[in-house]
Amino acid sequence: MKVSAIITLKKDVLDPQGKVIQQALDGIGFNHVNEVRQGKYFEIDVEENDPVKAKKIVEDMCKKLLANLVIENYQIIETQ
Amino acid sequence: MKVSAIITLKKDVLDPQGKVIQQALDGIGFNHVNEVRQGKYFEIDVEENDPVKAKKIVEDMCKKLLANLVIENYQIIETQ
Repeated sequence: MKVSAIITLKKDVLDPQGKVIQQALDGIGFNHVNEVRQGKYFEIDVEENDPVKAKKIVEDMCKKLLANLVIENYQIIETQ
Repeated sequence: MKVSAIITLKKDVLDPQGKVIQQALDGIGFNHVNEVRQGKYFEIDVEENDPVKAKKIVEDMCKKLLANLVIENYQIIETQ
């Protein structure tokens, strides 16, 4: 089954990439934006049909490889 | 209010970055993965309190800047 993981920078970590996107949006007329923060999104198709186990596997992946837990948070979402 | 956008590659578009992540996961013991696809995630705080309007604004942003609609799909999610 497919499980998705969203990795975002923690609240207190500066996001210069998001800032640049905000400036670009401002440049094309979106002037009422308070903040943009960018994150990563992974859609992982694991060979596991039990949603709970599949989520656990993807959570392990986040902890071991996908997310840097010092500065990032992860969020697991069931996709299918 | 905060609205999130998830940008993913369309189904038929190859995702070499996802493939590399899959190989890296395989290397650290996650051998039962069918596919990994990577996408982008944006959390946008717009000066608009009406959820419908806020989503509409972020959808416009996706169309005009954030997503390349030739090869990517977008998905808008209400965050807060």
